[in-house]
Amino acid sequence: KVIWTVLVTILGYASSLPVGEDALCTAEELAKYRIIFTGKWSQTAFPKQYPLYRPPAQWSSLLGVTHSSDYSMWKKNEYASNGVRDFAEKGEAWALMKEIEEAGEKIQSVHGIFSAPAISSGTGQTSTELEVHPRHPLVSFVVRIVPSPDWFVGIDSLNLCEGDHWMDEVSVDLFPYDAGTDSGFTFSSPNFATIPQDTVTEITCSSPSHPANSFYYPKLKILPPIAQVTMVKLKKSQLGLSAPFINLPAKSNEIIDTVS
Amino acid sequence: KVIWTVLVTILGYASSLPVGEDALCTAEELAKYRIIFTGKWSQTAFPKQYPLYRPPAQWSSLLGVTHSSDYSMWKKNEYASNGVRDFAEKGEAWALMKEIEEAGEKIQSVHGIFSAPAISSGTGQTSTELEVHPRHPLVSFVVRIVPSPDWFVGIDSLNLCEGDHWMDEVSVDLFPYDAGTDSGFTFSSPNFATIPQDTVTEITCSSPSHPANSFYYPKLKILPPIAQVTMVKLKKSQLGLSAPFINLPAKSNEIIDTVS
Repeated sequence: KVIWTVLVTILGYASSLPVGEDALCTAEELAKYRIIFTGKWSQTAFPKQYPLYRPPAQWSSLLGVTHSSDYSMWKKNEYASNGVRDFAEKGEAWALMKEIEEAGEKIQSVHGIFSAPAISSGTGQTSTELEVHPRHPLVSFVVRIVPSPDWFVGIDSLNLCEGDHWMDEVSVDLFPYDAGTDSGFTFSSPNFATIPQDTVTEITCSSPSHPANSFYYPKLKILPPIAQVTMVKLKKSQLGLSAPFINLPAKSNEIIDTVS
Repeated sequence: KVIWTVLVTILGYASSLPVGEDALCTAEELAKYRIIFTGKWSQTAFPKQYPLYRPPAQWSSLLGVTHSSDYSMWKKNEYASNGVRDFAEKGEAWALMKEIEEAGEKIQSVHGIFSAPAISSGTGQTSTELEVHPRHPLVSFVVRIVPSPDWFVGIDSLNLCEGDHWMDEVSVDLFPYDAGTDSGFTFSSPNFATIPQDTVTEITCSSPSHPANSFYYPKLKILPPIAQVTMVKLKKSQLGLSAPFINLPAKSNEIIDTVS
């Protein structure tokens, strides 16, 4: 029995992942995955302006969608939708859920929405299940960085289908993005709308190129990953409460780095 | 064709709902529901000490479970588990998810976990889907009141099965509970552990009977509901992105009171 295991680690940006715009998925059935999000936003890795109080560093709820290439939740260098803006600025999910649902209604480009609970510290884990379909094999999600002006991490259109089968495991390092809707420079900046709106951009250790920026580390070549996501295909016997979940640590901040 | 619609409005406390400890569910199949949580924590309804800044009034992620009577997520007048304490105090879901999963593994008392995104204001809505099973027809969930010492709203073991069929719609008013683990008296009280731990108690307009308490309104007979939850059974054609969701308002804070 061949086990297909694909571990993908993207340094730089998730939107360079194969999005399967043209790839045909000929896998026969629905597939379910457990998705595990791990925050790696520690004071050790990100000492600059690390938020300790009101609020301390933490992660919003995770909001995601499984879809076809006819839908896009967010995309680097494109303008964020109103729903993504509300979510990235305030963690408010409703407008984004409505956008997803309308895309599902109008052009059948969406299979389902999923969400996972917030994490109350910068390092910790959250998890849920998602379902993909041969016509809707792509996964996108967003998690807001709290506190921040409009910064988030996420995945844009990751294809879980590879020809005639579903990938067994995918793991991706995540880096911060700016939604382009609030011009705050630091985690705790007051609200300051960006007018006209800018596109979604990746935040790196050198961009925005200004010493006041919270992620500006001129001595680094690249930022360490601020989070990581792992998707593990569930066997049919694991549907419901599944083994990959049980093997996680009792405390969410005992981080396991699944890419060794 | 008979439509079974049951609207249940509980004034006082949700734990007085029929929990089906002995009722046998003979419904034939799994049923899916859309669950819609509506925050009604407005400054008009709850003027006393209404939190406006850092953080303003809001709701955590919703974390829920479908289960049999062998499992209990939380119960009035009993001690909160460590998982419920972490969730009620900090909105940290991991320990509670582990507890649920262990109950599912060891005694097969759990069918599934569900969660819905946080709401960034006191009045607003969030939503997700859940699945019940004839052997696991009960629904429980918690949502943390933010900010607060250890206060939450939720449902304890609501039975969606009625004999041989699933209820079509259930709507319940929600009132605040104290998890009994932090002795803070007001929304923004600093952390102050309750030692020894107290049991879960309902907070009313007269209890705790102290003028400093944020919910103490001596002129009221009962508090207005601080939130409401509605569960709507999905028809098979509605599975996935469903009609009850689509009919909700574009903005989550345009509250629809479904109990008229």
